[in-house]
Amino acid sequence: MSEESTVVTHPFLDLAPLGAAQFASIEDRVARLLRTEQDVVIMQGEALLPLEGAIRSTAGPGTTALNVITGPYGQTFGDWLRDCGATVIDLAVPFHTAVTAAQIAAAFEEHPAIDFVSLVHAEAATGNTNPVAEIGEVVRRQGALFYLDAVASVGAEPVLPDAWGVDLCVIGAQKAMGGPAGVSAVSVSERAWARMAANPKAPRRSYLSLLDWKERWIDGGRKALLHAPAQLEMLALEACVERIEADGLDAVMGRHRAAAAATRAGARALGGGLEPYVHEDREAAPAATTLRAPSGVAASELVTRALSCDPALPLAAGGGALAKEMIRVNHYGVDATLGAVRASLAALGAALREKGIAADVESALRAAEDAWR
Amino acid sequence: MSEESTVVTHPFLDLAPLGAAQFASIEDRVARLLRTEQDVVIMQGEALLPLEGAIRSTAGPGTTALNVITGPYGQTFGDWLRDCGATVIDLAVPFHTAVTAAQIAAAFEEHPAIDFVSLVHAEAATGNTNPVAEIGEVVRRQGALFYLDAVASVGAEPVLPDAWGVDLCVIGAQKAMGGPAGVSAVSVSERAWARMAANPKAPRRSYLSLLDWKERWIDGGRKALLHAPAQLEMLALEACVERIEADGLDAVMGRHRAAAAATRAGARALGGGLEPYVHEDREAAPAATTLRAPSGVAASELVTRALSCDPALPLAAGGGALAKEMIRVNHYGVDATLGAVRASLAALGAALREKGIAADVESALRAAEDAWR
Amino acid sequence: MSEESTVVTHPFLDLAPLGAAQFASIEDRVARLLRTEQDVVIMQGEALLPLEGAIRSTAGPGTTALNVITGPYGQTFGDWLRDCGATVIDLAVPFHTAVTAAQIAAAFEEHPAIDFVSLVHAEAATGNTNPVAEIGEVVRRQGALFYLDAVASVGAEPVLPDAWGVDLCVIGAQKAMGGPAGVSAVSVSERAWARMAANPKAPRRSYLSLLDWKERWIDGGRKALLHAPAQLEMLALEACVERIEADGLDAVMGRHRAAAAATRAGARALGGGLEPYVHEDREAAPAATTLRAPSGVAASELVTRALSCDPALPLAAGGGALAKEMIRVNHYGVDATLGAVRASLAALGAALREKGIAADVESALRAAEDAWR
Amino acid sequence: MSEESTVVTHPFLDLAPLGAAQFASIEDRVARLLRTEQDVVIMQGEALLPLEGAIRSTAGPGTTALNVITGPYGQTFGDWLRDCGATVIDLAVPFHTAVTAAQIAAAFEEHPAIDFVSLVHAEAATGNTNPVAEIGEVVRRQGALFYLDAVASVGAEPVLPDAWGVDLCVIGAQKAMGGPAGVSAVSVSERAWARMAANPKAPRRSYLSLLDWKERWIDGGRKALLHAPAQLEMLALEACVERIEADGLDAVMGRHRAAAAATRAGARALGGGLEPYVHEDREAAPAATTLRAPSGVAASELVTRALSCDPALPLAAGGGALAKEMIRVNHYGVDATLGAVRASLAALGAALREKGIAADVESALRAAEDAWR
Repeated sequence: MSEESTVVTHPFLDLAPLGAAQFASIEDRVARLLRTEQDVVIMQGEALLPLEGAIRSTAGPGTTALNVITGPYGQTFGDWLRDCGATVIDLAVPFHTAVTAAQIAAAFEEHPAIDFVSLVHAEAATGNTNPVAEIGEVVRRQGALFYLDAVASVGAEPVLPDAWGVDLCVIGAQKAMGGPAGVSAVSVSERAWARMAANPKAPRRSYLSLLDWKERWIDGGRKALLHAPAQLEMLALEACVERIEADGLDAVMGRHRAAAAATRAGARALGGGLEPYVHEDREAAPAATTLRAPSGVAASELVTRALSCDPALPLAAGGGALAKEMIRVNHYGVDATLGAVRASLAALGAALREKGIAADVESALRAAEDAWR
Repeated sequence: MSEESTVVTHPFLDLAPLGAAQFASIEDRVARLLRTEQDVVIMQGEALLPLEGAIRSTAGPGTTALNVITGPYGQTFGDWLRDCGATVIDLAVPFHTAVTAAQIAAAFEEHPAIDFVSLVHAEAATGNTNPVAEIGEVVRRQGALFYLDAVASVGAEPVLPDAWGVDLCVIGAQKAMGGPAGVSAVSVSERAWARMAANPKAPRRSYLSLLDWKERWIDGGRKALLHAPAQLEMLALEACVERIEADGLDAVMGRHRAAAAATRAGARALGGGLEPYVHEDREAAPAATTLRAPSGVAASELVTRALSCDPALPLAAGGGALAKEMIRVNHYGVDATLGAVRASLAALGAALREKGIAADVESALRAAEDAWR
Repeated sequence: MSEESTVVTHPFLDLAPLGAAQFASIEDRVARLLRTEQDVVIMQGEALLPLEGAIRSTAGPGTTALNVITGPYGQTFGDWLRDCGATVIDLAVPFHTAVTAAQIAAAFEEHPAIDFVSLVHAEAATGNTNPVAEIGEVVRRQGALFYLDAVASVGAEPVLPDAWGVDLCVIGAQKAMGGPAGVSAVSVSERAWARMAANPKAPRRSYLSLLDWKERWIDGGRKALLHAPAQLEMLALEACVERIEADGLDAVMGRHRAAAAATRAGARALGGGLEPYVHEDREAAPAATTLRAPSGVAASELVTRALSCDPALPLAAGGGALAKEMIRVNHYGVDATLGAVRASLAALGAALREKGIAADVESALRAAEDAWR
Repeated sequence: MSEESTVVTHPFLDLAPLGAAQFASIEDRVARLLRTEQDVVIMQGEALLPLEGAIRSTAGPGTTALNVITGPYGQTFGDWLRDCGATVIDLAVPFHTAVTAAQIAAAFEEHPAIDFVSLVHAEAATGNTNPVAEIGEVVRRQGALFYLDAVASVGAEPVLPDAWGVDLCVIGAQKAMGGPAGVSAVSVSERAWARMAANPKAPRRSYLSLLDWKERWIDGGRKALLHAPAQLEMLALEACVERIEADGLDAVMGRHRAAAAATRAGARALGGGLEPYVHEDREAAPAATTLRAPSGVAASELVTRALSCDPALPLAAGGGALAKEMIRVNHYGVDATLGAVRASLAALGAALREKGIAADVESALRAAEDAWR
């Protein structure tokens, strides 16, 4: 073999294309993770792709959508829905709380025409999580289509489309699953497929189209892919599901739940005015905890100080206007550890003290440790 | 380190996210490969994503588009253009030939309203390549926007958006570049950006949107990505451009040109009724050669026979109706070798003989070898 | 997460160390591939490491070794054996043939003191393969320890240490298994362990030591590794065994056997003086075929010509003095295809013709195709 | 391309072999990292391979070796030296300190025959680092050969074979470099090569041999490798050196130095009887800090408790007899962060309290933060 002929050798090049059979088997593996009998379509892009594709496929001028806003993604979904011509009823709840099934029921009562509900399960950006099981019961009773963004919940807390009556459940692997961001998945119920088929404006022959996958991939027996897949990301998705299976989904979710409990308990004990942004524990997302900065101190400044000695900490300020008041602790994936929580609390305590605010790191850590167990 | 804590170790997991700086540097590297000063946007999906996004961003009811059809992709572009409300003038040329600059000029003469031209540079599916430099001169003279699909040409033959006046030049790495299929790129001229900005129906806040990348990524100084990128595919794209740089782009293109010349010469010498589908050498794509099956023999059957003993050969039957008459030899990427050409010719010769058709493999190989040099 | 903090992101960095449990499971998988109940030790180096380690561990001044030389590795083994102080009886057979069980039996008769037999199963460098099953019967009857180098046979033909009575069976993944070269394995019988334990000069506390692995790894229940493993190579070994399991070992071996048969038949039909170096088909290795260059033509020159237009062909001249007369066709791993055989035969035919020697490529290919089936 | 033909696709399989040119360029890159003009040989195994190979190549019955023991590796080197027939003078210093240049000078005075000095630069297992620059001056003045194990120092503190007069400097990438463990390197001075060439017992034609690499690789102009390399590990080594170059070696070393300072200051402030095992700061290794457990408490028990809630923490008990009294904080590679130090101190504080021992975590963290800056 002439050694001179290959100048650059790289394991990411010259791979055999990912075959349809392996692609289908990865879809099946994701379906098992979601305990669903629905069709699971893996789309070749970030989770925004199936999120947008699912709305554009199902919503149209005849749609009356109840759009629940518990964070920035809900606002995006409303934009898409209006763009499709749907009548949109926004149900915005303060970011420090979750929506309740009762609020959903009340909205149905007020707007009987609602035939579509869009909801973000958990929002990493605001740190809340919504009671999807209870909401699903209401939505199903009303016969509306139920669309769920589970990107920030899958792997951190139960995501059960079938048990909950979710018709369009979108996931990505980049948060609690500890996997790639470049491919994502959506489970689609029979009802959702029917709604799309009846929607003349549903994208077809488009990168956004779910129906293309239905008609050319699923209905064809999953023999021929629509286009060459993002093969490395697909292999990474397979690997991360394999790891979750090996660890046990319950153990993985348990680590996230413990990290959230520890962060919240620690922040409360730290004092200095820092407190959980989401008031109720049961409304707090297991994947990421948001904290409210003490009044008079910019959250972004605290975060900058905390990261200055340790840029790898999973801390960020809130986005946009929230940068003033919200600190995010992203204890998901590899950071779903007590160590990441401890280091984050200690760094926040030090940042508070630099601003002249007393902070009881000792108590914070003890509280975090107690809560972790 | 507790060894029991990690059940599944995999190099594709738990990577640090790809930062904005590295993302931007990969864009710059692609721009250098295309010798362009235009903005290069890397989109997080297969090449269909920027292909569709570029059309939906620029075309609208006020657009008069000349859509050149030299293969299946041209037909898809026409669908998208019509979908956008554009007036579409289809200029279809037989798949065994290329379009000429004169044909383009004549179309402009006949339809002076044309302000958009869409063209596929080379089509792997039909094996032709079009004279983009000459066509570009005509299009520029007319002031129309020039949209080019260079997915099957980049790496195999020159692709020079600036020199040729291409306003939207889309590439993917999965063919002659020997790279990943999951991310792709488009270079965008100032004129194209202006057209999009003036287009009220250009996708915004959408996975299909180019303007989102312009406004939130480029205009912001490429500091913050719109969403987490497909990081493994991005690294693979970087690696494949690095390899092309190390080998030399001219050398890489030379291998593809030689492979095409050898395949065509070989097929002619093989006899038995097999002949190049594209008549003129200069209209034949360097990345893939199409052959016409002898009359009375289905191309798909010949391919099936040829692959039966060697499923790794880069052979395929034409798509759809072409399956009857067209054989594709995909001598791109790792298959841009004389060995792949020889093995393909020998396999086709054997398949012909199995059908009772004489084939002169000896002459075919000699002709291929002569043409390769 | 500060994006500026990570300048270089690479999937090969910052991996969690490979744990003992996964290491052990890879050993078990290799054992299943070899259908052996013996201990399998994976050593962290190229196959030369266990090859050398096994000899230095078992041989000493009291050893009388029958060293069978059917290629260059046999010569190396003799050097090691002498270096250990063993009495070495070299049994060299011409490289164009294999050793026979009768020759082994005769050697035992002549030298009843023989208590160790070293043999290369198949030699890629000379292209022969030896009848290990029959030889094993003789060796076992005589009670000698049986050491086998199966690096160039595993994956291409059956390797069955238990059925054949092999005491030390060394494999590497870099040939027919299509895997990595950086780690390798040896299966060790109880008798071999006992021999080592009784050998005062067996390496201990040494990178060459097998006893270290026995005493500190195996006897300790495989809980703690001796040192951090070559983790990427281990994962690659796991992947290649997984692929063989998925394809089926029989299918993988079948491809290699077919490639050898096709190459030999093709070379014979090619004429021009080229002929199989190993006379008897049953003595020819499935992993690689050696050919004798026509008299008056240097093999190395033919190979250079053949590679000039196609450096990726799996061709090489023989090593050392054999460079004059021997051509090697390495149709193993990804090159165990009819396409690689066809391309190699065509390239050799063209090279012969350039030297003014008639070669019937047409017949060569037909013969190869017939033999492949 | 038949999709059914590939059952398992994996980026680690079917790679083109790593060529000699790329191998040589990786050696050159390692040489630049060490600022050395000496030959750098990359050996295909864990660092134990060049460590052992270098001793067996240079030491023999005529050697008088001063073997400095500051941890377990020094003991291993003494075993190898004796095994080679060398006269060994062991200079053992307590693990809580470093050896001094004066002690080395005194040893030379007492034993003028010393012509070889073996030293571990820094020992992760005991946490000390030795003043190699000063010692090098003494050794050079005496004309002895200087052998240095820099595996646990390279990347964490300066390693300068040329400036310090080191003749055999062995490194591995698995600690502060954050790279692979499966390949390693040794720089060899001209004097060292000469010593080996004159040593009749230096390994030759052996996996342990350095002379094989000298004679067959370096002297041949680095054209042909001795055997197929561990290609994935080589690529990982290249990637980790590239990352260090991008970050800046000084910055990488700075992080390790800061982590050590913070850990030591934090442990002192924690109280409860925990204290740095190595008394003097300047004798403490930047890569890893060892701590002495309070009397009456087993270090291994504290570590087990600390890891129980957070198995990913970089904590370990000392090896062997040290398990009772020594705790290791391995703040190297990805763990060279303030966050890892904070989490480790907090975990140790919690473990102490569980044993009923007061620990001032608050003060520990403050001290660590002050020391980090």
